[in-house]
Amino acid sequence: MTQLTEALAGTITPQMQRVAARESVSPETIRDEVAAGRLVIPANRLHIRGTGEGGVKLDPIGIGRAVTTKINANIGASPINSCSQDELLKLNWAVKYGADTVMDLSTGGDLDGIRSQMIENSSVPLGTVPIYSMIVDKSVEDLTCDDILAAIKAQAAQGVDFVTIHAGLLKSHIPLIQKRKMGIVSRGGSLLAKWMIHHNRENPLYEMFDEISGILAEYDVAYSLGDGLRPGCLADASDEAQFAELEVLGQLVTRARAAGVQTIVEGPGHVPFDQIEMNMTRQAAVCDGAPFYVLGPIVTDAFPGYDHITSAIGATAAATYGASFLCYVTPAEHLGLPNAEEVKQGCIAYKIAAHAGDVARGLPGARDWDDKISDARANLDWKCQFELAFDGETAAAIRGRDIQEDSDYCSMCGRDWCAVRISNELKASLAEQG
Amino acid sequence: MTQLTEALAGTITPQMQRVAARESVSPETIRDEVAAGRLVIPANRLHIRGTGEGGVKLDPIGIGRAVTTKINANIGASPINSCSQDELLKLNWAVKYGADTVMDLSTGGDLDGIRSQMIENSSVPLGTVPIYSMIVDKSVEDLTCDDILAAIKAQAAQGVDFVTIHAGLLKSHIPLIQKRKMGIVSRGGSLLAKWMIHHNRENPLYEMFDEISGILAEYDVAYSLGDGLRPGCLADASDEAQFAELEVLGQLVTRARAAGVQTIVEGPGHVPFDQIEMNMTRQAAVCDGAPFYVLGPIVTDAFPGYDHITSAIGATAAATYGASFLCYVTPAEHLGLPNAEEVKQGCIAYKIAAHAGDVARGLPGARDWDDKISDARANLDWKCQFELAFDGETAAAIRGRDIQEDSDYCSMCGRDWCAVRISNELKASLAEQG
Repeated sequence: MTQLTEALAGTITPQMQRVAARESVSPETIRDEVAAGRLVIPANRLHIRGTGEGGVKLDPIGIGRAVTTKINANIGASPINSCSQDELLKLNWAVKYGADTVMDLSTGGDLDGIRSQMIENSSVPLGTVPIYSMIVDKSVEDLTCDDILAAIKAQAAQGVDFVTIHAGLLKSHIPLIQKRKMGIVSRGGSLLAKWMIHHNRENPLYEMFDEISGILAEYDVAYSLGDGLRPGCLADASDEAQFAELEVLGQLVTRARAAGVQTIVEGPGHVPFDQIEMNMTRQAAVCDGAPFYVLGPIVTDAFPGYDHITSAIGATAAATYGASFLCYVTPAEHLGLPNAEEVKQGCIAYKIAAHAGDVARGLPGARDWDDKISDARANLDWKCQFELAFDGETAAAIRGRDIQEDSDYCSMCGRDWCAVRISNELKASLAEQG
Repeated sequence: MTQLTEALAGTITPQMQRVAARESVSPETIRDEVAAGRLVIPANRLHIRGTGEGGVKLDPIGIGRAVTTKINANIGASPINSCSQDELLKLNWAVKYGADTVMDLSTGGDLDGIRSQMIENSSVPLGTVPIYSMIVDKSVEDLTCDDILAAIKAQAAQGVDFVTIHAGLLKSHIPLIQKRKMGIVSRGGSLLAKWMIHHNRENPLYEMFDEISGILAEYDVAYSLGDGLRPGCLADASDEAQFAELEVLGQLVTRARAAGVQTIVEGPGHVPFDQIEMNMTRQAAVCDGAPFYVLGPIVTDAFPGYDHITSAIGATAAATYGASFLCYVTPAEHLGLPNAEEVKQGCIAYKIAAHAGDVARGLPGARDWDDKISDARANLDWKCQFELAFDGETAAAIRGRDIQEDSDYCSMCGRDWCAVRISNELKASLAEQG
């Protein structure tokens, strides 16, 4: 049984209970949303009880429009930087700064070891892209169908909660990239396209989709259906290649659900701000309400070094108009592997996007947090403001540069020019006058 | 004659010529937009030729929907930090990192001296909020009508290009703040409200509007009609107080134009993401297309220390839907006076918003920059990418942490896993196969 098949059978699992409690939504609603495929609880049955010796148990989360928008942090070693200690530090920072899930995208170092350590140390769902581990010691052309199934099985058996499977990129789509400026920018997508061209065969992940679903159902690993053809620049956004793959992803959602596997769909990428709403609406229609998991989108290509910002702008629009899961982008995007500080910056930018989206779409209770912090601000209660702020430590440090902690003003206006103080005095005199 | 009266007379001034050349728009279009009041060229006739000895001459810019979206950086000393050298450094950083205009909002130190130095050293239009200098040595209650006119005249005669005048906040609006969480968060607005309550009189800036217009017309200083009642938190957004003031601002636009004074209108503030489009549409209708100059808007109150991001999100939506002038917000917003690094961070976040908005609204040529950098990225031409990038220095430094400059890959994927390289190989083999 998976969360999906349990929900379809009418059962409320402990994981659904937990999600309901975290979100102040009824357990029945959570169950019904899971049953409809609109809410996914990535929770490998092994991770639920903790893997390894003394492994941390998963604290389940829900991903879908009925609940708060979630964010994912991509971490993992690369062939250039491959230290598992660094990645564990990034895992901790990611969770500290609000990542609801973490993906281990390691492509270098001891992949099995890093993954195993991550799962053991992670209370949040852990995702992977299994194709990476399949080709560490070989060329992608040498990959066999048995290799693929064996690697997916091995990762499911390690306790991975969700996996990116690029099954929607078909052989017939590949010629469409000739019209593109950036071609294929998905690592998994480009590797699979290389395999298909070399063997003149269909995408093996597509051909073996039912076998893969069988493995995932066994452990209750959720699909994150990868978008190998996501646009890598504004010029390629919303093109034929992107939407051809999306159509296939829509069909795979139906097949995955029929196999009892919970399913998320991945999306772009680089998209001009004005095309984001259309992209969200289209995915919801094509994929029957399966949670949309977007990477940004980045709304301008011209600011490398600041893509946590360019993409948080797109992510806010995405969360407002239909996405329920935002994959962060760090300042190091397009430039290198992020360090721990950049992981933090990426997480915070995405907490902003997720929350601003929740407020904008009118999710019940979302604005309470803003209202509380604004009350503290109006009361010139700096201590309370910093306790409520997402990263109050940083906020307090900026203020503390020039002003003593117990002052009731800041260095922008000083005491006498403080609009908040003057405004409070005005309110008091208005109240006095009745 | 002002740019507006010249345009109405059919003249194309050298300043209109310059704006046309910068924007690749015909001089006739610039003139017609100025004549219609939809485009403002803040250019004090004294600043045009350079003030003081060897003062830098103004290089004029245009603000309006017919041209690229502009950004403003607020700098200036406060009672707590009042060093003119610091502020001149910030002026340089602001212009280096893309500020199209700068406002000197000094409220501490030698205000006249700082302002004079700023104008002398600034090739971009300089704006001020004259009420600040009126009350440095006295209580706002002691301010007389003569003081007000004298201060505005003095700043116009110094060469200031545009001034924030909070003439739209009427006495009858003040009781509306009782319903608000944050009351009045505009410094100028709160001071004027205090004056009105104390004297039980109408806003003197409203009452003397025609006299003020006469002064501004003499020097061709543009109005930036201040929004003293801008919302200071999400809960106060789009409320009765905000829109009551906007109605008055709309009337003042007509009166200012009739006096030959170019006019910009200021806007919020803190606004939930879903209310931004409505706010832009409403201002355009009420203010007859006068350029809208917005502060953010900030789309969540809960992230002090990161308000350059919370507000760049809102600013992108604002630029897409109607604003033509974005006042930056720095990471120090709500916490203190920004330092030079925060000025830089604010400027960059706002260049992102302005450009992403221009792309989203389909401004001709806006996406060319993105396309060029994406071509460089597709060609793995890092040197060219960094030359084209807005802050290529920072981007190159992130990449350079792990990788030698002349490598043709980055530390995210390393050489063999680079999707861009694989994709280029695929494209080549597809082209070979025809």
